Amino acid sequence: MAENTDLDLSPRAQRKLDPDRVLTFTDGVFAIVITILVLDLKVPDLGSGQSLADSLEEMRPTFVSFVISFLIVGMYWAWHRSTFAQVRYIDTSVLWINLLYLLAVSLIPFAASVLGDYPDEAAALHLYGVVLIAATLVRILLFWYLGRHATLLWQDSTEKSRRLGFSLAAAPLVVYVVAMLVADPLPTLSLVLYFAVPLLYLGLVAVLQTAPRTKAAAEDVS
Amino acid sequence: MAENTDLDLSPRAQRKLDPDRVLTFTDGVFAIVITILVLDLKVPDLGSGQSLADSLEEMRPTFVSFVISFLIVGMYWAWHRSTFAQVRYIDTSVLWINLLYLLAVSLIPFAASVLGDYPDEAAALHLYGVVLIAATLVRILLFWYLGRHATLLWQDSTEKSRRLGFSLAAAPLVVYVVAMLVADPLPTLSLVLYFAVPLLYLGLVAVLQTAPRTKAAAEDVS
Amino acid sequence: MAENTDLDLSPRAQRKLDPDRVLTFTDGVFAIVITILVLDLKVPDLGSGQSLADSLEEMRPTFVSFVISFLIVGMYWAWHRSTFAQVRYIDTSVLWINLLYLLAVSLIPFAASVLGDYPDEAAALHLYGVVLIAATLVRILLFWYLGRHATLLWQDSTEKSRRLGFSLAAAPLVVYVVAMLVADPLPTLSLVLYFAVPLLYLGLVAVLQTAPRTKAAAEDVS
Amino acid sequence: MAENTDLDLSPRAQRKLDPDRVLTFTDGVFAIVITILVLDLKVPDLGSGQSLADSLEEMRPTFVSFVISFLIVGMYWAWHRSTFAQVRYIDTSVLWINLLYLLAVSLIPFAASVLGDYPDEAAALHLYGVVLIAATLVRILLFWYLGRHATLLWQDSTEKSRRLGFSLAAAPLVVYVVAMLVADPLPTLSLVLYFAVPLLYLGLVAVLQTAPRTKAAAEDVS
Repeated sequence: MAENTDLDLSPRAQRKLDPDRVLTFTDGVFAIVITILVLDLKVPDLGSGQSLADSLEEMRPTFVSFVISFLIVGMYWAWHRSTFAQVRYIDTSVLWINLLYLLAVSLIPFAASVLGDYPDEAAALHLYGVVLIAATLVRILLFWYLGRHATLLWQDSTEKSRRLGFSLAAAPLVVYVVAMLVADPLPTLSLVLYFAVPLLYLGLVAVLQTAPRTKAAAEDVS
Repeated sequence: MAENTDLDLSPRAQRKLDPDRVLTFTDGVFAIVITILVLDLKVPDLGSGQSLADSLEEMRPTFVSFVISFLIVGMYWAWHRSTFAQVRYIDTSVLWINLLYLLAVSLIPFAASVLGDYPDEAAALHLYGVVLIAATLVRILLFWYLGRHATLLWQDSTEKSRRLGFSLAAAPLVVYVVAMLVADPLPTLSLVLYFAVPLLYLGLVAVLQTAPRTKAAAEDVS
Repeated sequence: MAENTDLDLSPRAQRKLDPDRVLTFTDGVFAIVITILVLDLKVPDLGSGQSLADSLEEMRPTFVSFVISFLIVGMYWAWHRSTFAQVRYIDTSVLWINLLYLLAVSLIPFAASVLGDYPDEAAALHLYGVVLIAATLVRILLFWYLGRHATLLWQDSTEKSRRLGFSLAAAPLVVYVVAMLVADPLPTLSLVLYFAVPLLYLGLVAVLQTAPRTKAAAEDVS
Repeated sequence: MAENTDLDLSPRAQRKLDPDRVLTFTDGVFAIVITILVLDLKVPDLGSGQSLADSLEEMRPTFVSFVISFLIVGMYWAWHRSTFAQVRYIDTSVLWINLLYLLAVSLIPFAASVLGDYPDEAAALHLYGVVLIAATLVRILLFWYLGRHATLLWQDSTEKSRRLGFSLAAAPLVVYVVAMLVADPLPTLSLVLYFAVPLLYLGLVAVLQTAPRTKAAAEDVS
């Protein structure tokens, strides 16, 4: 498919449409969000008769939650990178939709922190779900907006690739909603569902990448 | 309007005038400032008999304040991006005016934090106002300086676009001053005024963008 | 040796393979991780009759540990920069191996913090060792993956340079394993071994750089 | 003066000598260091009968110290930018000297924090002095190293500009040493001396920039 032709713009307008700084800013926010997660790991204060080894052993759930949250934020960053690889120009709407995406993503460390302290509480599981769903919805909004403003893209997307991309963006929603619904009666299942998403996603990417017939599909994930 | 011609500079002088690192540094500071806001959301310690759900419910004003402050910092960043899209070269004065802008912006999380803890106190509302007014004044200073040093810009601005840009930069000042004046008798109104600015701004951008006759005006905001 | 020829890719695919944002994101994470280390230095609270000078004097081990951890993170960053100087394209696997590398590196401040508080405890020394070994193993994994996907590199590496690079990447492993084994009976030796790695590394770089016959070797370190 | 000719390097070696990532990483560290300073401003806990206004009033010295430290870090960043505007290639030594520079700079928030809590203590004033002197010495080391490796620069510097640059880099040293010497008998004078440096520096830049005869000199500061 051929590239879109350049918009006939004044140089100044062209610079305003350049996504460059939006990407630098976004990468900075993601870098901080993913690193803030580690601040949840606190050096243990040893009670009397407690060894450091025991105390670190007790932190095991916090470690697991840290690793999973790290992978989840990494996944949202990889999605962002993958989506914006198609974007040639941004307008004010894309800029603000992107800020909303960062707003949702920046709440992940807080939600992960609450979940780390109260892993069996439905309220903590709901909070985590709401934050992940918000980020996913903004992602779908961005997807939808870009689909309707093809001049912002490097090249037109096909109807088929749009539908595949949309499905991949929306798929986690189903898991998150189920995880929220079962949070009250089955908190452990809910937790497992949240944590399964990045692993499923990585598995899906691996499968799509090794299957030669779905090369185009593999390009839509990352 | 044609581009300004290149300044006749030695290669080294040209590199010193390159805004590149100023933008990377600025994007980094904004990314940290906007992410620090989330550190205000603390995992609740549950008192006896209190549920996590209640406790999160009580944090609602803190959430609202977080979202508004996030949008305000995002707005100041969008302004910065929009202004520097016109800047081709920077001199030492622009570099230091930019540092003053970052100084004011970096105080927003502290002021927002005080306001989150004491939303009814006139002193907290005044502090918030002083910080936002300082950031806006530095922005106007930058605007004024760039208007007098046209060789730093990609292309000369028209008198009309300068006046429009100046008005848009100065408009929030009026709201902030009113919000400070009413802080003592009417703290809630003051709070609403502060929080209205990003929403009014987004509304204005939307209106200017959809009205084809003011395309040039839309370019001056973002 | 000649450059590899360009892959015959659609423009969009080419942008997805561009390592640019991965590097910006990685530099951001490293910048934060290296700066978080300083948060371990807390302003001392003076007990009765204690002078600030004494209190700062007591912090000396914490300062030493800060400087060493700073150099270690700097070393892992220099390695990353050196490795990716050879990388022309990235695929999804490189992106995720890189995220695993950042995951391990982002745990260094926590492990350094535990070690700063419990420098004689075997458990703290083991934790530090596990984190450093994890980062080194991911580095070797990246090395191995890139060696098998030569089209991702700017130019093919020779068998000899691959073996040298691999040895240099694996060498610290030996030190770390020994440091972990002696942690229980000889904690001080263990500590010295960990802290020797960045110094040995800098010495090695200096030697390789000044010896003209190993210029190619010097290019493999940095 | 003509540009230096390109070094005759393999493409891979050229990428290893590219300062690009060193600058991104450095800008990231500076952005975090300058923003961490604001974490010293804590929301006041009101004692009984104390108003928020009084409590904020009491924080005035902390605000002053924050603003000064912000300007000092900004000054070290501006120096870095100015110096590296001349640098075309970096070698491993420059990379590690730069890391030492960042090590010293990253200690400024801690030293500023100690000074904010104990502004009259000689030990706090000495710590602040040691950190600023360390940063300045590393800066001089970088200056000296670059002076002896002219192939790393975009163009050779003249003997005269080297001497001027060196004097400007070394000048603050004198002030810092005096400030340390008088810290014990005259803590307030010591404090004033430290805080005078960024103001003197800004004044000097302003004077050099407006004096047309010293245009070359103005290029050496920023």
